[in-house]
Amino acid sequence: MSITLDVRHGRVEMSHGSGGRAAAQLIEQVFVPAFDNEFLRQGDDGAVLPAPAPGHRLVMATDAHVVSPLFFPGGDIGGLAVHGTVNDVAMMGAQPLWLSASFVLEEGLPLADLQRIVRSMAQAARAAGVTVVCGDTKVVERGKGDGVYIATTGVGQLPPGAAPSGAAARAGDAILVSGTLGDHGMAILSQREGLSFDAPIQSDSAALHGLVADLLASGAAIHTLRDPTRGGLATTLNEIARQSRVGMLIEEAQIPVQPAVAAACEFLGLDPLYIANEGKLVAICPADDAERALAVLRAHPLGRDAAIIGRVVNDDRCFVELHTRFGGRRLLDWLNGDPLPRIC
Amino acid sequence: MSITLDVRHGRVEMSHGSGGRAAAQLIEQVFVPAFDNEFLRQGDDGAVLPAPAPGHRLVMATDAHVVSPLFFPGGDIGGLAVHGTVNDVAMMGAQPLWLSASFVLEEGLPLADLQRIVRSMAQAARAAGVTVVCGDTKVVERGKGDGVYIATTGVGQLPPGAAPSGAAARAGDAILVSGTLGDHGMAILSQREGLSFDAPIQSDSAALHGLVADLLASGAAIHTLRDPTRGGLATTLNEIARQSRVGMLIEEAQIPVQPAVAAACEFLGLDPLYIANEGKLVAICPADDAERALAVLRAHPLGRDAAIIGRVVNDDRCFVELHTRFGGRRLLDWLNGDPLPRIC
Repeated sequence: MSITLDVRHGRVEMSHGSGGRAAAQLIEQVFVPAFDNEFLRQGDDGAVLPAPAPGHRLVMATDAHVVSPLFFPGGDIGGLAVHGTVNDVAMMGAQPLWLSASFVLEEGLPLADLQRIVRSMAQAARAAGVTVVCGDTKVVERGKGDGVYIATTGVGQLPPGAAPSGAAARAGDAILVSGTLGDHGMAILSQREGLSFDAPIQSDSAALHGLVADLLASGAAIHTLRDPTRGGLATTLNEIARQSRVGMLIEEAQIPVQPAVAAACEFLGLDPLYIANEGKLVAICPADDAERALAVLRAHPLGRDAAIIGRVVNDDRCFVELHTRFGGRRLLDWLNGDPLPRIC
Repeated sequence: MSITLDVRHGRVEMSHGSGGRAAAQLIEQVFVPAFDNEFLRQGDDGAVLPAPAPGHRLVMATDAHVVSPLFFPGGDIGGLAVHGTVNDVAMMGAQPLWLSASFVLEEGLPLADLQRIVRSMAQAARAAGVTVVCGDTKVVERGKGDGVYIATTGVGQLPPGAAPSGAAARAGDAILVSGTLGDHGMAILSQREGLSFDAPIQSDSAALHGLVADLLASGAAIHTLRDPTRGGLATTLNEIARQSRVGMLIEEAQIPVQPAVAAACEFLGLDPLYIANEGKLVAICPADDAERALAVLRAHPLGRDAAIIGRVVNDDRCFVELHTRFGGRRLLDWLNGDPLPRIC
């Protein structure tokens, strides 16, 4: 097993997915150096992990990542695959601990690209305080993939007590977002279409576990947390409204959007409320706790543009209504169709 | 959300991966009816799970599945995606409990095929005593996938005490296999190439949690368990030999191979010891416990062709040697190259 892969010039071959010698080389020379930890060093087909802290339950979440292009302003598929799943675990009120990572590689992918992606995953995992404890690699023929797809599953521990849920929003609650909307989707789109705007748009791809921990420690009664990824804020609010059997009233003027994103959306005929985010959260809490929650969000680097954007109301139809900037009202529907495929 | 999908005639569209209304319809009309359980009904982006039993640790394992064709004699990608990961958890000595499932769908996949695969997964999960607690679906453009890829991650609970490990094989131990070798790989190959043999070859795709539970309850000191999937028995034995820093001597005449598989392998110039299995395990235990372990395996429907095939020896080179049927000796090396890509 001593042959060294030529990571700089080599490409993924079908034999890297064989389970044999070539697969072992790829694992030992690309994956293990990046992710090295006591669990992977066990060297078995599964990882043995300690039990959660006494009284804690578990949270499990998964996401497949097929973003195109693989590298984009502000991130890449590797970091995104960590952030997406860490955030899904964190939104349940849990502390993310462990990740699995499954790779579907396309024959011909430059090994240098794979190494860059894997290193980015490892860096994102370290920053998020999670450990990649197990993984798998398959290879598909040229033209049956698109470079690399990565599925991650996260497991975390949930402290005793009430956990935030999409079903826990109550009429009268305040609705907050942790920052500007639409950054990730517009960064991908501008990269994909070769568009350049006056101000470059960066993805907001980031792990929100720290922001969530601060929020939960603040004493504010957090009823609901969710990250508005695919489908954007509008779709996320509709999901929560349906789950909690409530309506929502949103103030358009209060929704933070970066000027460059707003301009790009206007130019392209897109609505930032339907554009994916990868480093933002929606928080819902009693109105009396809203200012405290807002202050905690704004005190964190990932929440400095946080805002209270609306409130939960009684509505059996579960409508999400927008008070427009111009004093009108309109229904904020679920995303229909898909203006931006393969955004994450 | 009341529009009904035409599952019988419809196909996967890009909008099914949007996170919007079409994605919600697909989840509600294809995934939820098949997998329905209290955890999915929570309706959040992650599942809240109970802690493991007192004193138990956790085991986590993951596998991506890219098998081609999607349907093959004896199984399909859905059942395989459950069995593969359930088995990886079981081989650690743990009781598999929960699964995540991430789908990468290719635009144009018939919804009827997807439904058939999802139902097969659900049936396999029920049979294995595991619950699919969270999932994700992404869609890629026609020509960027191959119908469907499925990544699953399993979590199980591991009782207190010594757990089997690939690093725990000791010189003097006996090596057992639970049944005939090469069935899965040859079933796929015959389907893929349109080959027909006198006796049809069926995949052995199966969940081995029950076989493992019986083995661990037998009182035999099980040092190592591993399922010989990609790379076959030969590669699995080499992995264990390297991990445990031992050698192995295998008796070719003792290795169970179905006549139809042996004939097909001979015809095609393949060696069944390098062909993937999806419902077999290798068990290593002290020689004094071998007969007891063998009896337990043979008493289980999935182990009735079990056999003692060799023994662990001292060897710093970690060689796996085969005593051939004709009285010779040869090195059983790792799989080199990949005679059967996309086998699982």
